[in-house]
Amino acid sequence: MARYAAGVEYLGAAYSGWQALTGLHTIQAELERALGRVADHPLTVTAAGRTDAGVHAMQQVVHFDSDAVRSDYAWLLGTNSNLAADVSLRWVQAVPIGFHARHSAVERSYRYVIHNRRARSALLGGRTAHWPRPLDAAAMHEAAQALVGELDFSSFRDSQCQSPTPMRNVRRIEVQRRGDFVVLDIAGNAFLHHMVRNITGTLVEVGLGKQPVAWVAQVLAARDRTKAGMTAPAEGLYFVGPQYPAEFALPKPPQPWFPGA
Amino acid sequence: MARYAAGVEYLGAAYSGWQALTGLHTIQAELERALGRVADHPLTVTAAGRTDAGVHAMQQVVHFDSDAVRSDYAWLLGTNSNLAADVSLRWVQAVPIGFHARHSAVERSYRYVIHNRRARSALLGGRTAHWPRPLDAAAMHEAAQALVGELDFSSFRDSQCQSPTPMRNVRRIEVQRRGDFVVLDIAGNAFLHHMVRNITGTLVEVGLGKQPVAWVAQVLAARDRTKAGMTAPAEGLYFVGPQYPAEFALPKPPQPWFPGA
Repeated sequence: MARYAAGVEYLGAAYSGWQALTGLHTIQAELERALGRVADHPLTVTAAGRTDAGVHAMQQVVHFDSDAVRSDYAWLLGTNSNLAADVSLRWVQAVPIGFHARHSAVERSYRYVIHNRRARSALLGGRTAHWPRPLDAAAMHEAAQALVGELDFSSFRDSQCQSPTPMRNVRRIEVQRRGDFVVLDIAGNAFLHHMVRNITGTLVEVGLGKQPVAWVAQVLAARDRTKAGMTAPAEGLYFVGPQYPAEFALPKPPQPWFPGA
Repeated sequence: MARYAAGVEYLGAAYSGWQALTGLHTIQAELERALGRVADHPLTVTAAGRTDAGVHAMQQVVHFDSDAVRSDYAWLLGTNSNLAADVSLRWVQAVPIGFHARHSAVERSYRYVIHNRRARSALLGGRTAHWPRPLDAAAMHEAAQALVGELDFSSFRDSQCQSPTPMRNVRRIEVQRRGDFVVLDIAGNAFLHHMVRNITGTLVEVGLGKQPVAWVAQVLAARDRTKAGMTAPAEGLYFVGPQYPAEFALPKPPQPWFPGA
């Protein structure tokens, strides 16, 4: 039995999220179907992180086990030719049996893309969140710095979140304006359910001038979801990818190409 | 009777090109339908340039005439709420009756985006052309400089092209690598049918090392379509937009945000 890791890219629009549940069209089920065709036996994939309905991935990472004798390249091309157009593998690589896509990950990064102009965009529908009113990205960036550290993120946690602890270590948050876009990049050890979207929805309140910069620290301190802003739409969120210890020699999360400067 | 100009963004994938022809799903027909709803009378739009089936636009420009009394903002929001998700207006502006979207344009620019990595991309399907083998963008750029100037582009002209002359003035061509992408930017007074895609297909031969840099000048000099490379796929081509004399005070072509650096 050999273990493989794979980098997976997807557009979340058509899917009910990552996790395979009976009767739902999910990315996990689509991927297991295509990999199973190449392996010639049913198999199960384990992901670095489950993404919600409509959320995209630049590089999700999964692992799976198989006895099938295939080169990394055969796995890659064979699976891509069996997958739907909105899911693709970036790479496949044999890994030690001790590798686990979720447990071995030491950092995860996400990008949230807001299209911030008056008129909606034909080219960006389903791929960004559209906020027509001008956002102050500098104020959002400043406010976001209160969320860096090993902190209790209860205020940014969905009521359905099943994590035993609300503590997470956010290592970096950067909010910057790029032309018509406001881009939020966030990296941490792991994230609670809806945490990035709830942080974004809260920072938008500051960006619109409805709340002062200092408000975000107060929201965090309250440990109360009802004090924070809305859950920003799924369509603006990209899982950029997980990072693993260097010993596994896996490709790093990709340099995001969207949106440009 | 008042004349209006509008900036139009679209994803070409679902359309049989720009021009309204009976029985075809075209961007012109879709736009005339939505504008007609807002105007409350049938109307016709004239575009800066017709794009082929599958070609996208960051900012096509059209003009249309109407007696309906609507603010620029009402035209914009009303039309966008009536348009399909893959077509949108960026702006609408009243213009002098002497303005003509095609005849008044003094320059047009296009971007061709090649996704140049081994595996296809789920996020970029239908929005870039995928070339899996490595391209030498610097060689492509050098070769392309032979195409700058007022020249006879017979070698890059589709057999169906109806222009009375093969002469066009190409003012700039730039080919550059940006991570996994090779981006071709081209600007000129006007373009022949399939000219940008035929130029791209020819430069790709150089990028793959199948032809030397000097070959492109020879292809141009031959004035023979059969000497040039393939017609690159429509899905990689974006009409960035036309430019007009400053007197019309119209928004410039957008700064392309795709793909990023």
